Amino acid sequence: MNDTLVDLAALLTKARQASRSLADTDRNGALRALAEQLGAEQEAILAANTEDVAAERARGSTAALLDRLSLSPARLAAMAEGVRQVAALPDPLGRVLDGKTLQNGLRVRKVTVPFGVIGMIYESRPNVTVDAATLAIKAGNAAVLRGSASALASNRALVAAMRRALAKAGLPMDAVQLIDSADRELVTELLAARGRVDLVIPRGGHALISQVVEHAKVPVIETGVGNCHVYVDAGADLAKAKAIILNAKVQRPGVCNAAETLLVHRAVAQAFLSEALAALAGHGVMLFGCPRTRAIYPAAQPATEDDWATEYLDLKLAVRVVDDLEAALEHICRYGTQHSEAIVTESLTSARRFQDEVDAAAVYVNASTRFTDGFEFGLGAEIGISTQKLHARGPMGLAELVTSKYLIEGEGQVRL
Amino acid sequence: MNDTLVDLAALLTKARQASRSLADTDRNGALRALAEQLGAEQEAILAANTEDVAAERARGSTAALLDRLSLSPARLAAMAEGVRQVAALPDPLGRVLDGKTLQNGLRVRKVTVPFGVIGMIYESRPNVTVDAATLAIKAGNAAVLRGSASALASNRALVAAMRRALAKAGLPMDAVQLIDSADRELVTELLAARGRVDLVIPRGGHALISQVVEHAKVPVIETGVGNCHVYVDAGADLAKAKAIILNAKVQRPGVCNAAETLLVHRAVAQAFLSEALAALAGHGVMLFGCPRTRAIYPAAQPATEDDWATEYLDLKLAVRVVDDLEAALEHICRYGTQHSEAIVTESLTSARRFQDEVDAAAVYVNASTRFTDGFEFGLGAEIGISTQKLHARGPMGLAELVTSKYLIEGEGQVRL
Repeated sequence: MNDTLVDLAALLTKARQASRSLADTDRNGALRALAEQLGAEQEAILAANTEDVAAERARGSTAALLDRLSLSPARLAAMAEGVRQVAALPDPLGRVLDGKTLQNGLRVRKVTVPFGVIGMIYESRPNVTVDAATLAIKAGNAAVLRGSASALASNRALVAAMRRALAKAGLPMDAVQLIDSADRELVTELLAARGRVDLVIPRGGHALISQVVEHAKVPVIETGVGNCHVYVDAGADLAKAKAIILNAKVQRPGVCNAAETLLVHRAVAQAFLSEALAALAGHGVMLFGCPRTRAIYPAAQPATEDDWATEYLDLKLAVRVVDDLEAALEHICRYGTQHSEAIVTESLTSARRFQDEVDAAAVYVNASTRFTDGFEFGLGAEIGISTQKLHARGPMGLAELVTSKYLIEGEGQVRL
Repeated sequence: MNDTLVDLAALLTKARQASRSLADTDRNGALRALAEQLGAEQEAILAANTEDVAAERARGSTAALLDRLSLSPARLAAMAEGVRQVAALPDPLGRVLDGKTLQNGLRVRKVTVPFGVIGMIYESRPNVTVDAATLAIKAGNAAVLRGSASALASNRALVAAMRRALAKAGLPMDAVQLIDSADRELVTELLAARGRVDLVIPRGGHALISQVVEHAKVPVIETGVGNCHVYVDAGADLAKAKAIILNAKVQRPGVCNAAETLLVHRAVAQAFLSEALAALAGHGVMLFGCPRTRAIYPAAQPATEDDWATEYLDLKLAVRVVDDLEAALEHICRYGTQHSEAIVTESLTSARRFQDEVDAAAVYVNASTRFTDGFEFGLGAEIGISTQKLHARGPMGLAELVTSKYLIEGEGQVRL
């Protein structure tokens, strides 16, 4: 049997049990209590976080990673405020998605209900622990959380506070549970727990997500990897194009909806690239260009096949001059990750063809790819950005954390 | 490399290529041509089917299996008629699911689009070959079909006819392809083809579905296994209850929405069981009862733990007397497969509690479980019945064979 300290089977049984009553509880009241509790236990949480950060620093991690791991009173307060905002959102449960009365008199309704037990597997940032638990509970689901080993003490303190808040509010505390171990076998076990976990959502880098998808026998929603493109069409408004590529690359380069490759129609390449690439370089962006790009802007380094396929998540940008829209579409089809893609154009024909033919979660005309985000799209929350096509595509909010069932009422009808 | 005759990677590349243009073609016209072609090629199709049936008979298969495998002019005509009906259904593509204008002026629409490439893995019945291809094409998807080895000649003839019809109608013929081999490795390869197959739907028995879910690294929708219950509450209208359990068990015992266990509140057990079980026995149903059931109806055989967990798909029924609604809910939670569950009651409280607490795709009050069906629910089609919670739950029609994407239009907006 499992010789770790965590008995995952028992944990999942408790999660299932807790999930059965959640829909009928005062979930919003519990979330407000949870926000309160994060404040009340601030000292313990920050002390635990200090441990994690010290250990990570001793391991020689980068300043960026240390920053992602660190909590502060201000960050905790922002997390609590986020919880209160979720409490104020409309209830995703009990919505009637469809309904009719059949000819035989049966009344059929399709209504939203919780999934049941949702597993979250994620990396470093401890705020995901609170986000994920909050959204799961709001949607009537029990959350089974598996954060990174580097944040274990922080996550332990956060989960302990959340469970105490649930208990105070009269909800089953097992609705939020942490897999309190760095043992990787437990992830494999979680991913194989068919019938005991209704959905697993991985959040993190390419390696984490691939590992989850490769091993999962339970339903999974893939999130996050974004090799996003901005294509500047012939006849584009070059001022708009420059503003859009600067925003898409520079405003926050480390996130999945940042642009990684700029494609430019050869008709505007000369006029656009000389100015735009200089501006990008002025913002510290390292440029990797195709031969035609380098003929116009020699300071760019030569782009390799790898550059087209890479999600830099950094101040780096690949640049390619293409013959036409068709070539841009082919490039995106070949290298894109179906996340967010943008065209800058004044042509209705080009805009329509780009939106029709690009197979991605979000397809933009004359706007930055950076808008692909649950809050920007007005979902009020975001549990991740789905880059697959089953159940959810693009930013996922509360509406994606529920499933449905058919309720049918009759007066003794039988099938003929 | 793969030493079979089927080059699955090449097949999937052709499917992807074909899928890219399907949405914009005359899919309904092509489906009408396809229906026509099944008639035109009737002779070749029936000859191929005769081969399959002869081989299966030589293998000593049951009459039921031979019947499922057999085609006839009448069955082919019914298949063609089914295709024409699908052609007449509303287009599932291009529906705007959600839309708004954000404060920054961005216009956001969430519209339905094809998945792309859908794999179907199924057993014996050759009509699934035509059904699956038809629904996939209607929804703008390419279909990659893997039927059973026993129907290979029939499927080959059907797919050849369908491909000729597509070509005639100006659609890419590679939108329908058969994995023309009995090699099981190809199924494993298909299930591992991440990024090349957007969705796999298995249709068949428990073993097939389990095998698919265990091996799949691509998105899968589980279908079909139904250990369905009818619960007769205290104070139920016993005439309704008798009609419902008879229908749910006897009308078509070999399908997933047939009832497998009857649960009866002890307050009505004596009055109900003596009459209802005699009626069921009169229809040839073999009964397996708990001790309290057998005290009332001694002709029932003793039920074992296995009986509660078994999907008989046969004229067999497990029967249990329970103390109350709570005990019925516990039994269903423990043994049910989240397919279809029914309560017979006159109590609004019981009805509501049953519908709230039973976690299943379809939850009935005073009606037979047999209604869980895409056609009965008015979907106009059915590709299977999902017993999982991701993307689709319950009967799946055309609306479940599409995904969505966000289309966003701006005038140069960037994120602040």
